[in-house]
Amino acid sequence: MRKFHTVTVVGLGVIGGSYAKALSALGYRVLGVDSDAQTLQAAADDGAIEQGASDPDAFFAQSDLIVFALYPSRIADYLHAHLHAIAADCVLTDVAGLKSHFVQQICASLADRADLQFVFCHPMAGREKRGYAYADPSVFCGANFIVTPTRTACEETIERVEALAREIGFGRIRRITPQLHDEMIAFTSQLPHAIAVALINGDTHPDTGDFIGDSYRDLTRIANINEDLWTQLFLENADNLIAQLDAFERQLRIVRDAVAARDAQTLRETMIRAGIRRRKLESDRAKTQ
Amino acid sequence: MRKFHTVTVVGLGVIGGSYAKALSALGYRVLGVDSDAQTLQAAADDGAIEQGASDPDAFFAQSDLIVFALYPSRIADYLHAHLHAIAADCVLTDVAGLKSHFVQQICASLADRADLQFVFCHPMAGREKRGYAYADPSVFCGANFIVTPTRTACEETIERVEALAREIGFGRIRRITPQLHDEMIAFTSQLPHAIAVALINGDTHPDTGDFIGDSYRDLTRIANINEDLWTQLFLENADNLIAQLDAFERQLRIVRDAVAARDAQTLRETMIRAGIRRRKLESDRAKTQ
Repeated sequence: MRKFHTVTVVGLGVIGGSYAKALSALGYRVLGVDSDAQTLQAAADDGAIEQGASDPDAFFAQSDLIVFALYPSRIADYLHAHLHAIAADCVLTDVAGLKSHFVQQICASLADRADLQFVFCHPMAGREKRGYAYADPSVFCGANFIVTPTRTACEETIERVEALAREIGFGRIRRITPQLHDEMIAFTSQLPHAIAVALINGDTHPDTGDFIGDSYRDLTRIANINEDLWTQLFLENADNLIAQLDAFERQLRIVRDAVAARDAQTLRETMIRAGIRRRKLESDRAKTQ
Repeated sequence: MRKFHTVTVVGLGVIGGSYAKALSALGYRVLGVDSDAQTLQAAADDGAIEQGASDPDAFFAQSDLIVFALYPSRIADYLHAHLHAIAADCVLTDVAGLKSHFVQQICASLADRADLQFVFCHPMAGREKRGYAYADPSVFCGANFIVTPTRTACEETIERVEALAREIGFGRIRRITPQLHDEMIAFTSQLPHAIAVALINGDTHPDTGDFIGDSYRDLTRIANINEDLWTQLFLENADNLIAQLDAFERQLRIVRDAVAARDAQTLRETMIRAGIRRRKLESDRAKTQ
């Protein structure tokens, strides 16, 4: 399988920065695009990128892979504006946490360049902090990697991108449709973020920090949320998220009703079911690592 | 301040075992009581206890501190059954995650021994796994420690127990009433556990493990729950927990309604508020460590 040689990473935030660090450590030639000059300097100082620029055109002309690590809503326009500069037969990929709507947008903006292939990916790793300063490629180690193939990429190209993901250290790699991706992500990612936000916003006591243990700390870690990104992700996946919020509320009602009825047996059974599911999650994960 | 010399730990589960390890490492003479012979052997092999037994009476007669690391509902009866064996002027303490109801029970069972002082404590550290095999005193390091004083202990004795907590490594130590403790704990501990259980029980897809990131992992860690202990904790604090579940549902509704209305501004504001609160929690914690 042909390996990539020169990779341009567009957007050196926490995820793009982590990609740049991972790829340069693996020996790839990495070029970095960011609107922030300090970020480019920091990435160059780290050796995460060979060169940096705010305008991508010169880098796009010499890359055989471009990673768009931008907010999902910006990718299509950005691609459209710089489409002319991209080298022939270049492979494009992204890191967006939402697919259906954005995949359509992006495919439309690719229409004039039948030679380009876009492999839509969602690396399921992140940090609750934002910005290059928090970029850390170790978050990819063993993490899930999802590919949502479309007709804009052939099998061989998809496999090249998956091979790169494996090289970076991702664990399980799965292919699903953009639609199923967005349904799953509403449950596994968006619902937990909505819960964390609601939990911490319900805090009514000034000294709560003195009365917490790891459980509250764990459940609110992601409440330190990037409001611009997540407002976009929530609203572009509104129907799926609402369905999951409603399903979660029904599950929480089971607990509430059992507590209200002092129904120890239902509570115990509900907890036993939860414990079994959680231990299965751990044992499944152990198998892939 | 007089230091304790000989400590009996009753119940060498994950918390009692962690206490035994911490105390023996600090040079205290530690005696261990557990109904399980293998647990006693393991704790003796580790050097966590000097001696172990299933019957506490011989140890109680020579201890100046007894730590009851039993299920909260069992402490009063246990104490009552072995009250005669406890040395004069011994100090008693517990690790129970719930206070009001149990404190009353325990105080009642102490009535015949005015020389004994009970300092009610809640070390806010734990593991989602149970049993001595998971005992690890490092979980106490920097953790919150709550004392709910009652008339069964004088100031000096409370300070002795607090000094020991500091020696073990606990961070912030707070005194509050049993009633306020149970209200706070309904929010900071019981609500997160109810949420984790409901979240993982709502999983409807067989391959969810392939589509999760750290957020789902963090929010469901405590779903691996001890159903006997937590059923007891939920039901003995039912009114406080229900109030918190209802308040949480209202917060979650704010998110849901904003998503349903495609109201980006409310969503952003809700997330900004959550982020500010979470960062405050982190900075408050950093100050005490």
